Amino acid sequence: MHSSFQPVWAASVADLDVRPAPGAPRAAISFAYGLPDPALFPTAALETAGTLVLREHSDRALQYGASGGLPQLTATLVERLNRTEGLDLRGHNCLITAGAGQALGLVARALLDPGDTVLLETPAWPGILHILARHPCRVVPVPLDAEGLDVAALAQQLAALARDGVRPKFLYTVPTFQNPTGLTLSLARRRSLLDVARRYDLLILEDDAYRDLAFDGVLPPSLLALDTDGRVLRAGTYSKILAAGLRLGWILGPQALLARLVSLKDDGGTSPFASYVTAAYTRAGELDPHIMRLLDTYRLKRDTMLRALNYYFPPAVHWTAPAGGFFIWVTLPPGQDSTELLARAREEGVDFLPGRACFPDPAAGAPYLRLAFSLATLEQTDEGIKRLGKLLGR
Amino acid sequence: MHSSFQPVWAASVADLDVRPAPGAPRAAISFAYGLPDPALFPTAALETAGTLVLREHSDRALQYGASGGLPQLTATLVERLNRTEGLDLRGHNCLITAGAGQALGLVARALLDPGDTVLLETPAWPGILHILARHPCRVVPVPLDAEGLDVAALAQQLAALARDGVRPKFLYTVPTFQNPTGLTLSLARRRSLLDVARRYDLLILEDDAYRDLAFDGVLPPSLLALDTDGRVLRAGTYSKILAAGLRLGWILGPQALLARLVSLKDDGGTSPFASYVTAAYTRAGELDPHIMRLLDTYRLKRDTMLRALNYYFPPAVHWTAPAGGFFIWVTLPPGQDSTELLARAREEGVDFLPGRACFPDPAAGAPYLRLAFSLATLEQTDEGIKRLGKLLGR
Repeated sequence: MHSSFQPVWAASVADLDVRPAPGAPRAAISFAYGLPDPALFPTAALETAGTLVLREHSDRALQYGASGGLPQLTATLVERLNRTEGLDLRGHNCLITAGAGQALGLVARALLDPGDTVLLETPAWPGILHILARHPCRVVPVPLDAEGLDVAALAQQLAALARDGVRPKFLYTVPTFQNPTGLTLSLARRRSLLDVARRYDLLILEDDAYRDLAFDGVLPPSLLALDTDGRVLRAGTYSKILAAGLRLGWILGPQALLARLVSLKDDGGTSPFASYVTAAYTRAGELDPHIMRLLDTYRLKRDTMLRALNYYFPPAVHWTAPAGGFFIWVTLPPGQDSTELLARAREEGVDFLPGRACFPDPAAGAPYLRLAFSLATLEQTDEGIKRLGKLLGR
Repeated sequence: MHSSFQPVWAASVADLDVRPAPGAPRAAISFAYGLPDPALFPTAALETAGTLVLREHSDRALQYGASGGLPQLTATLVERLNRTEGLDLRGHNCLITAGAGQALGLVARALLDPGDTVLLETPAWPGILHILARHPCRVVPVPLDAEGLDVAALAQQLAALARDGVRPKFLYTVPTFQNPTGLTLSLARRRSLLDVARRYDLLILEDDAYRDLAFDGVLPPSLLALDTDGRVLRAGTYSKILAAGLRLGWILGPQALLARLVSLKDDGGTSPFASYVTAAYTRAGELDPHIMRLLDTYRLKRDTMLRALNYYFPPAVHWTAPAGGFFIWVTLPPGQDSTELLARAREEGVDFLPGRACFPDPAAGAPYLRLAFSLATLEQTDEGIKRLGKLLGR
């Protein structure tokens, strides 16, 4: 098969890649986005999976599928979650989506009516700000402190809102390797968060996209795992642990809530082909060893960036030391603005995410910036932080 | 690569298929859904495409992509449309979506405010009824006659609405091999439809999912092709011509309108992997000859069903004779209800779509039913129509 196609195919794909225009401004070293390292994509194993799915399951993998997701992938995913986290999920507690982003978008569409109030941990993942901006709702920020979401502040806000007769539709939070700060909420705080949620009958939208990327040992259970009364929806994704280009994620939670999300899905069900490939890949035992390889590389990248920050950055600058995930959060000295730094950094060929992108009120983000250590090579990381350090030292 | 993986992979995929429970009621012959024939999926060529994409382009195909769609697929698609239809589209006139359904859902979300009015050709594709049902809008049916959308009736409705100060947000129509009737609007009617639309400044949402499946020669240009003032959005899909399981479709139209749709997309961009595979497949020159093979098979299936209808159905029953697409629309004698027929048909192992599913007011669909000839084999088609004919003859 391959040999007869090879010449025409090789020619046809040669011009597939759209290269940036010559002279286009482009940062040579990017810490801006939470992109997985393409060198870690398991291409050979995915090729094997794709070939076998096309040869043995094409009648279903290339056909329309169930709107709730391919049952084979749901079963594979739920089995893994139950086994590795001691959960007790069934298939109907899991909806397959086009990444975690679609899952979060569906929750917003299902739950938010005009005038509703949403609680948002702040600083926040810029994506959730974009999603919420589509809805005419009021976003109430809940601050993070050095240990993550400030649960006492949340309780105060809920009390104040309750006095005004306002019951927020949900709280959005990334409790594990938070985006953008990298912070992880302790078990004690998770328990008190759930206590507060119970007291105010609050739904929690837990974005746990980075849970599998724990470099330094055991994690506290997810909010979903600790929940006893069906008030947590937990989103996850294959984008960080397998391949973002497959566009596969999921959301876990009570069946009745997931049914409302399915009814809003207008993509005809998340790709049966990508789902079959991922299910086959996982069932062959490939995923867990692959994640171990990811951990080794991303841990090294984190360590390299932390070492470089220690070495090159002036003492007045502070940063988090995440135990996993993709991000480090940097606090500049009072009065400095990361947006101004970014303009100068880009001239030096270095890119990062300015803190303004992470706050409902952008001005509040001026002294902060987010560094993603996932994409850059070790050499780029050292060189990029060195250049930033020089700019900060001026 | 393959040989070393083979044993564990073969075992892992063996249990991937979820078979129906033994004894579960299941129609043996289904004319119910517009499913492509899995025997026609080009699995070998897709395997070649997938292998080459993973070997040569994995750094982009497995990474996050642009929210408007992979530029390589947009370029490939636009080149094909411009070449085969004489259009003058640019990349910014094309948004890649998860099937045509997502495109239509995005249009509804972008344009519909509470209380808005939408014009809907009736009978209609059930999917558009589901999409519109998510929005608190008023759906005004526009009837079809034997030649498709009744443009004179449309003009009267628009005039009546205008007298009440109502300007509908858009008209939804499938002008080519309409779903569910199989009818195709003539060039003259298309021209008068656009005249009417111009007079009332009406946006047209043209669903052209079946355009490439023309069995009997040349088609009239699409409404988009005839449009001179940017009032047509045209949705299309790879689901019928390549593989529904890849979940790839598109929408064509004015850049400003498409930009509004992109901003509502919450899937992180339609799958870069599926898009790369489809672009590589198309650029290798595979798509057009594949569509020729589809035409030969689906034409034969249509002819077989029409012959069977002529032979087995009583003279009081009428049906359409589509020149392409997947569907034949059947009108039962006055007083008969296709839902009652369906219950008896299922007992005989035959399934179809009752007309009720195609009308905003289900009761209006009682005397109709839709037969999809795309999925069943020739033997099943003859046998299934024979069984239905017996039931109708009682």
